Amino acid sequence: MSTYAAPVRDMLFTMKEIGGLDAICTQPSHEETTPDLVEAILHEAASYAAGVLDPLNRSGDQQGARWHDGAVSSADGFGDAWKSFCDNGWAGMPAAAEWGGQGLPVLVSTAVLEMWKSSNLAFSLCQMLTLGAVEAIAHHGSDALKRRFLEPMVAGRWTGTMNLTEPQAGSDLAALRSRAMPEGDHYRVSGNKIFITWGEHDMAENIVHLVLARLPDAPAGVKGISLFLCPKFLANDDGTLGERNDLACTSIEHKLGIHASPTASMCFGERGGAIGYLIGEPHQGLACMFTMMNHARLNVGLEGVGVSERAYQHARAYALERVQGRPALAGSGTIAGHPDVRRMLMDMKARTEAMRALAYFCAGQMDRAAGHPDAQERTRAQALVGLLTPVVKGWCTDNALGIASDGMQVHGGMGYVEETGAAQYLRDARITTIYEGTTGIQANDLIGRKLAREGGATLKALLRRIDADAHRLIESPGPALAQIGGALAAAAHALEQATDWLLAHSDAQPQHCAAGAVPFLRLAGTVIGGWLSARMAEAAAAQLAAGTGDAGFLAAKLATGSHYAAHVLVQALMLRDIVTGGAGSTLALAVDQL
Amino acid sequence: MSTYAAPVRDMLFTMKEIGGLDAICTQPSHEETTPDLVEAILHEAASYAAGVLDPLNRSGDQQGARWHDGAVSSADGFGDAWKSFCDNGWAGMPAAAEWGGQGLPVLVSTAVLEMWKSSNLAFSLCQMLTLGAVEAIAHHGSDALKRRFLEPMVAGRWTGTMNLTEPQAGSDLAALRSRAMPEGDHYRVSGNKIFITWGEHDMAENIVHLVLARLPDAPAGVKGISLFLCPKFLANDDGTLGERNDLACTSIEHKLGIHASPTASMCFGERGGAIGYLIGEPHQGLACMFTMMNHARLNVGLEGVGVSERAYQHARAYALERVQGRPALAGSGTIAGHPDVRRMLMDMKARTEAMRALAYFCAGQMDRAAGHPDAQERTRAQALVGLLTPVVKGWCTDNALGIASDGMQVHGGMGYVEETGAAQYLRDARITTIYEGTTGIQANDLIGRKLAREGGATLKALLRRIDADAHRLIESPGPALAQIGGALAAAAHALEQATDWLLAHSDAQPQHCAAGAVPFLRLAGTVIGGWLSARMAEAAAAQLAAGTGDAGFLAAKLATGSHYAAHVLVQALMLRDIVTGGAGSTLALAVDQL
Repeated sequence: MSTYAAPVRDMLFTMKEIGGLDAICTQPSHEETTPDLVEAILHEAASYAAGVLDPLNRSGDQQGARWHDGAVSSADGFGDAWKSFCDNGWAGMPAAAEWGGQGLPVLVSTAVLEMWKSSNLAFSLCQMLTLGAVEAIAHHGSDALKRRFLEPMVAGRWTGTMNLTEPQAGSDLAALRSRAMPEGDHYRVSGNKIFITWGEHDMAENIVHLVLARLPDAPAGVKGISLFLCPKFLANDDGTLGERNDLACTSIEHKLGIHASPTASMCFGERGGAIGYLIGEPHQGLACMFTMMNHARLNVGLEGVGVSERAYQHARAYALERVQGRPALAGSGTIAGHPDVRRMLMDMKARTEAMRALAYFCAGQMDRAAGHPDAQERTRAQALVGLLTPVVKGWCTDNALGIASDGMQVHGGMGYVEETGAAQYLRDARITTIYEGTTGIQANDLIGRKLAREGGATLKALLRRIDADAHRLIESPGPALAQIGGALAAAAHALEQATDWLLAHSDAQPQHCAAGAVPFLRLAGTVIGGWLSARMAEAAAAQLAAGTGDAGFLAAKLATGSHYAAHVLVQALMLRDIVTGGAGSTLALAVDQL
Repeated sequence: MSTYAAPVRDMLFTMKEIGGLDAICTQPSHEETTPDLVEAILHEAASYAAGVLDPLNRSGDQQGARWHDGAVSSADGFGDAWKSFCDNGWAGMPAAAEWGGQGLPVLVSTAVLEMWKSSNLAFSLCQMLTLGAVEAIAHHGSDALKRRFLEPMVAGRWTGTMNLTEPQAGSDLAALRSRAMPEGDHYRVSGNKIFITWGEHDMAENIVHLVLARLPDAPAGVKGISLFLCPKFLANDDGTLGERNDLACTSIEHKLGIHASPTASMCFGERGGAIGYLIGEPHQGLACMFTMMNHARLNVGLEGVGVSERAYQHARAYALERVQGRPALAGSGTIAGHPDVRRMLMDMKARTEAMRALAYFCAGQMDRAAGHPDAQERTRAQALVGLLTPVVKGWCTDNALGIASDGMQVHGGMGYVEETGAAQYLRDARITTIYEGTTGIQANDLIGRKLAREGGATLKALLRRIDADAHRLIESPGPALAQIGGALAAAAHALEQATDWLLAHSDAQPQHCAAGAVPFLRLAGTVIGGWLSARMAEAAAAQLAAGTGDAGFLAAKLATGSHYAAHVLVQALMLRDIVTGGAGSTLALAVDQL
């Protein structure tokens, strides 16, 4: 069994070369965040992930969370780990300083969150949901709600949830039926919710549920949904806990993976209605929810990165230890010397590093959007974040499935045995393309709200940047960079053609566009990830030429960029062809011919 | 929960149009096999699969096989099902009539086996291993062994196993350590074996283990391995059971899937040596084992088809029932009307049907190789079987992972909940790319023994056929067939280029070839599967034009061929590029740079 070691060197390299760390550290709100401090934080977090969270990952998977009579016991060790997680300040670290967090750049907290995702995905979800709820309350809650709830939530004494889904309302929130009746300064909420991550557990004193429900006078559809805060225990003004609210966990799901993360079915209002407080304006619940959902989508994309990294490390450790057959490659006595094993490892590595680059790039743009001195830059960065959010979510998780599966394959027969641990990454990763909006939902968001609505302006501007970078690389003296540049230019052109096709057909043939939405999302991820991979290769080559940095690491970075170009970027033309030529057959059959 | 319904119509269509059923039925050994009889057998088998095996699939997964003190209890209902499976003559059906089987064409038994794989993969493995052992004994065993063992094994009263793997010897059988000492007319076998499918259970009176071990004078490596038959209970000459042999099941694995199929660790010779009988010549064990292994590889490829079909049916049933959102497609009130759901279903369907065509084509060639009146045709067919075996095994199982995963995705959040049943297909399918030789092993077999050794003659001849068919389609009046033909011609050209590249580099840069072996196998599967998909589309178009057959089914077949061309064949150029241009980066890093 391998031990997780956070790839701090690669994280720092990516934060600097792709995330724009140095510039972010000069922004007014982050002047105290020095690169040295960032490095120290990452090393601390790496040590915590390896020492506390990683050892609980497999035992948590085996034991799982257990439901009994409305209560949920977390897996052994999880309660203590959560306490130390809070005591060490990790729980609320990404939150604003105003509420007890550390107010660090999103880029920095993203790298730290990746470590929690890698070392223990199930555990990390409790923090992710809590931070999402904190953000929704901080942005949309009344001052009274903020005062009462934010401090204990940021401290991790209370945790948070998102209650969206109902049995008949999954991706389609318009079908939501939960109700809220006004009663004095609060509401009485009733309804049944499913798939509530960490909806019930024993790690915290209180659980703060954010619940989507309809007011009596609400219009139909998504424009009639409001957001309510329903704590498990009512909170007194002095911060102490009051009586138990009228809500209950009726069961938890038996899932393929993330066993230690309880997925609760919740029942609100069995005894007259759970007391709830309106967050934001009536009927504006969806907008409030999207505040937390957008951030959560980026973080689920980051789960794709984290699980992929962990699967890669696990497979690499096995490949460097297992002796079998006569390896063809010199210098390798183990199966890492078999070319096909090497191919799988290189694919895993190249994709994972490109996915990390994409996630960190997006995080860096969030910091720019929040604090860049130039308003135009802030607007531009915000548009990029909007465009990239579905790509990070959809593409990184989609890749993670293949990477986790390849990680099992590297193990051969041992990979299929649960004790080996490789299978857990596939089981855990498998939820990431589904929750917080399936890949199909992300792709529709991408081609609709993010592309067609603005005539493709943001993506076109990005493509001009990519094309300029590709041509600079083509002109570079080294053959490796020139090859990468050539592959990138061709792939970017394919993305542009697919974009033009979608823009040309979005009005007249929306269903044909929708049929190609997921392939288009994959194309966008492949190309933008390839752009960042190429930029990392270029930076590595420059540092190598300058004689700075670790030569072995930098040479590997350059070769990894070549691998991405030769094995991943080459998929761009095929994806373009599917987008532009695949809709007819996709939509050809009547349902009874399926 | 959907119920499995064997796709008898598609099976028969594929057997006739691709497998060459009519011609096989005229071969001397199969003159009694009329098309009507075949159809009746398929309907009987379909009814048995749906009525008996399918209902045990999920319960078997939940309960699993259980080990206790050396004994293994099969999951509830499995013992009764095995008994009825034998009583109904299914267990030994594919075996030769001489030993109690029905001596049907391989093509016919392949279609029937697909139904067992679809309805209950774990259960089907017991038969598959038994039939493999039957074949090895029938081909290589002495008359005495045949007389004593074949009849009860074909009847299913006794089952069979393959004991190859040892902890240090998985893909690398050269590292095998198990020993056999001569003692009179038999041997004493000792050693530890792992990953023995159905190595111990309570469904049959006896278990006949075929065990690879070394004789005292054996040369090192794979040329010093012999094959022994070690029954769990010794068999008296009168067919009754004698005393228990010196072999024991020490544990069974806790696996990701196929829970109801016990994967045993076996210990031979703890008390002086298990009595074993030599099969074939000393030191020729590997050749004997390959007799069963080649057939097993085809059957594991068929598992890819079977699980994919089942995953498709499950996803289709959910998509036709689940209401969510406003479907964009006319005539669909359910999520099947969402273009992206339709895309996933069409991808699953098009791939599965092409995989079925490939498996049946190969089965048909086995029948030609065995019984065609013309010796040259037999030789040609045998060469095709050799070439295609690793492709069927590698490509169909590789596809099955993606198809089973997409099946979960169609279900959204419900797909991640085990009760839904969709996750089991992914868990079960995940072993198929590993056992009976990983995809990497298949790919090395393909580019080495099957390609380089004969200068690519068989594949080149096949490519000429494919190219001729593609150009005939290009000239056809209908635009659908012409488009399919164009895509096929381009893809076949890509396969030819990749083939030429491999042949040109196999001597000087074998490790570069090995680095592209799996992408090459995928390319071969994509193109050959696409050829068969195109031929099915052509046959459907001809029948439509002639006004014969079910118009809805035939139109769907044609559209499915178009979908394969537009979504799968388009991958060929990318795979060629990876084969011909990807090795450099794959092999670039030193192991400490990974």
